[in-house]
Amino acid sequence: MSGSDDPLFAAHRGGKLAVTPTVPLASRADLAIAYTPGVARVCEAIAADGSLAEAYTWVSHLVAVVTDGSAVLGLGNLGPRAAMPVMEGKAVLFKQLGGVDAVPICLATQDVDEIVAAVRAFAPSFGGINLEDISAPRCFEVEQRLDALLDIPVFHDDQHGTAIVVLAALRNAARLLDRKLPELRVVLSGAGAAGVAVTRTLLAAGVDGAAMRVCDSRGILYSGRPDLVTAPVKTELAGQTNSDGLSGDIGTALRGADVLIGVSGGQIGAEAVAGMAPGAIVFALANPIPEVAPEVAARHAAVVATGRSDLPNQINNVLAFPGVFRGALSARAVRITDGMKLAAADAIAAVAAGALRRDAVVPSPLDPRVAPAVADAVAAAARAEGVCRGQRP
Amino acid sequence: MSGSDDPLFAAHRGGKLAVTPTVPLASRADLAIAYTPGVARVCEAIAADGSLAEAYTWVSHLVAVVTDGSAVLGLGNLGPRAAMPVMEGKAVLFKQLGGVDAVPICLATQDVDEIVAAVRAFAPSFGGINLEDISAPRCFEVEQRLDALLDIPVFHDDQHGTAIVVLAALRNAARLLDRKLPELRVVLSGAGAAGVAVTRTLLAAGVDGAAMRVCDSRGILYSGRPDLVTAPVKTELAGQTNSDGLSGDIGTALRGADVLIGVSGGQIGAEAVAGMAPGAIVFALANPIPEVAPEVAARHAAVVATGRSDLPNQINNVLAFPGVFRGALSARAVRITDGMKLAAADAIAAVAAGALRRDAVVPSPLDPRVAPAVADAVAAAARAEGVCRGQRP
Repeated sequence: MSGSDDPLFAAHRGGKLAVTPTVPLASRADLAIAYTPGVARVCEAIAADGSLAEAYTWVSHLVAVVTDGSAVLGLGNLGPRAAMPVMEGKAVLFKQLGGVDAVPICLATQDVDEIVAAVRAFAPSFGGINLEDISAPRCFEVEQRLDALLDIPVFHDDQHGTAIVVLAALRNAARLLDRKLPELRVVLSGAGAAGVAVTRTLLAAGVDGAAMRVCDSRGILYSGRPDLVTAPVKTELAGQTNSDGLSGDIGTALRGADVLIGVSGGQIGAEAVAGMAPGAIVFALANPIPEVAPEVAARHAAVVATGRSDLPNQINNVLAFPGVFRGALSARAVRITDGMKLAAADAIAAVAAGALRRDAVVPSPLDPRVAPAVADAVAAAARAEGVCRGQRP
Repeated sequence: MSGSDDPLFAAHRGGKLAVTPTVPLASRADLAIAYTPGVARVCEAIAADGSLAEAYTWVSHLVAVVTDGSAVLGLGNLGPRAAMPVMEGKAVLFKQLGGVDAVPICLATQDVDEIVAAVRAFAPSFGGINLEDISAPRCFEVEQRLDALLDIPVFHDDQHGTAIVVLAALRNAARLLDRKLPELRVVLSGAGAAGVAVTRTLLAAGVDGAAMRVCDSRGILYSGRPDLVTAPVKTELAGQTNSDGLSGDIGTALRGADVLIGVSGGQIGAEAVAGMAPGAIVFALANPIPEVAPEVAARHAAVVATGRSDLPNQINNVLAFPGVFRGALSARAVRITDGMKLAAADAIAAVAAGALRRDAVVPSPLDPRVAPAVADAVAAAARAEGVCRGQRP
């Protein structure tokens, strides 16, 4: 299964990253510059003026990709060692697409306090923190606390990367179908990390919360649903959506709906999808098995997207995170705001808008135009919001 | 002082490191191998058999260079941000000399418990931990606790790197002067991180503890010295050296001594050095100002070494740590033992032994023969001691 004759495993042998010096070390003179005694002057300059660390260390272009291994891809709680191949892959994408250096940090703890303490401790070594594959609901508290503690961008990609790309795809699908976001009746299947962030982002983008239904494995979230008393994040979502308090299963939610966004992994029957309004939009993002089989969805929907690389309209976070961090770092942003996320979604949508088709509402994941466009949009939004170091308030 | 027209600062602009992917990302097929969906199979294989992490992640050739910024070079407590240029330089040396990838981790805490907790948390991301520029006596506890907690090599370079190179130099100086280690009366000036480790290593190598004197800023350590009750590490040293309980200043210690090793930064007067035995050996390692001016030392000593790159016999840790970690990682050692350190010293000494001169008792810091020789010796010692993963006891 993992023999050296398996080409997939062969590609991962020895890992997928290296640390490369960017200064020469061919002579004693080189050594005296890169290391002692020369480096002492650089250290002293930074000690006297901390802002010089941005210019004279790699921290300014370096992101930590941090996980506790509790929710690795769709595979579950594999722990820190088995998470490393994903985190290395993420670092490859950061560099190749965004020009951002990234180091994977896989943590030996799944305790929120310990995760926060560890990241806070090593944070001076990085210009940004990309949280990854941390299970809900712990991921919300981890991100919120780190965002409050640190003066560098903190971004849980499973939440916001997904939400950004979903919004970009939805904008273009609506454009193609000549619909407006506020008139769409949206159903979300999944109230985990991605579901929560997608809901919040769609609401921020103008989708009508009153008509929106969010479902978890027990059905539609509504205010007062008994089991929500122990789930503060779901209680919040219930309060922001489903204003008429509809209860029931996903089929009930989908009746007459315009948009289905699946970020749950749970399967949704063909009859439930058949109940959607004509000209519907279906994003079934579970990987490798979408919530609705794409060919079934295509019978009822005008636009279908999945998370799969072998199908059109792949909704892939890689369209977002390299550019988001490149933009945030280049603008010296101290955090990543809702406005920066919306700007990222608009930039992604704009790249595909020039050649919009039902099977091309988002750019290809490796489209080289995307990350620079996202970076520019995110940096501009950061400056406009005044969240950059060195900006006057 | 730090303007872009200063060539030293220009060399450090943007930092000195990059993270480089070692797999292609030119096509969707590449993406499906390096990232989802292909990477999932590698993750699952490691989850089923943790030992596969060594083969299929970069952890097996990756070291964290960890500091709390409390003792940066000889500059003192500059904090984590100002320490980064040194740690980056160290990572450059790790890669260029030892072929070992290294990532600097500068911590926002100087609390021992918090340092230990943070390193323990991120340890699964690395194959070894190089502790750096952590002040004494905290460095002893940090290293000891991490060494006990982790199943990867932990090595405080300020201690052991220095001790290894000092021992190598002392072996060659003794060889040159036709002396044996056990007959040498050694005086150590400095009882901090380096002084403690040098003492322990020389004792392990056969130097006579009874005749050895270790001095701190208050003079010779002796059992029962009143202030030592609050300094357990110095109490230990006093118990292992100076068996006749000599008290007094460094001048008293040096009277008739064969070897002076300065790792203190404090100045030692010419008259004190003049009291040493004929044909003495003086290693004055403080940087940039040696404890004894080299030209003064040369008047009284047969062999003089310093820590300076512009003088002969530079005793520089860079001769040790790249090869030590390369050897420990390649042998899959779970720790770095005294035997591995002694083997490293012997290997360094052997490289210079072929062309031994008074001004060449150690190899040049960039001699490309050193790290491979050290690595081989360290790996062989690890295997001989049975401290490698996968070895049968």
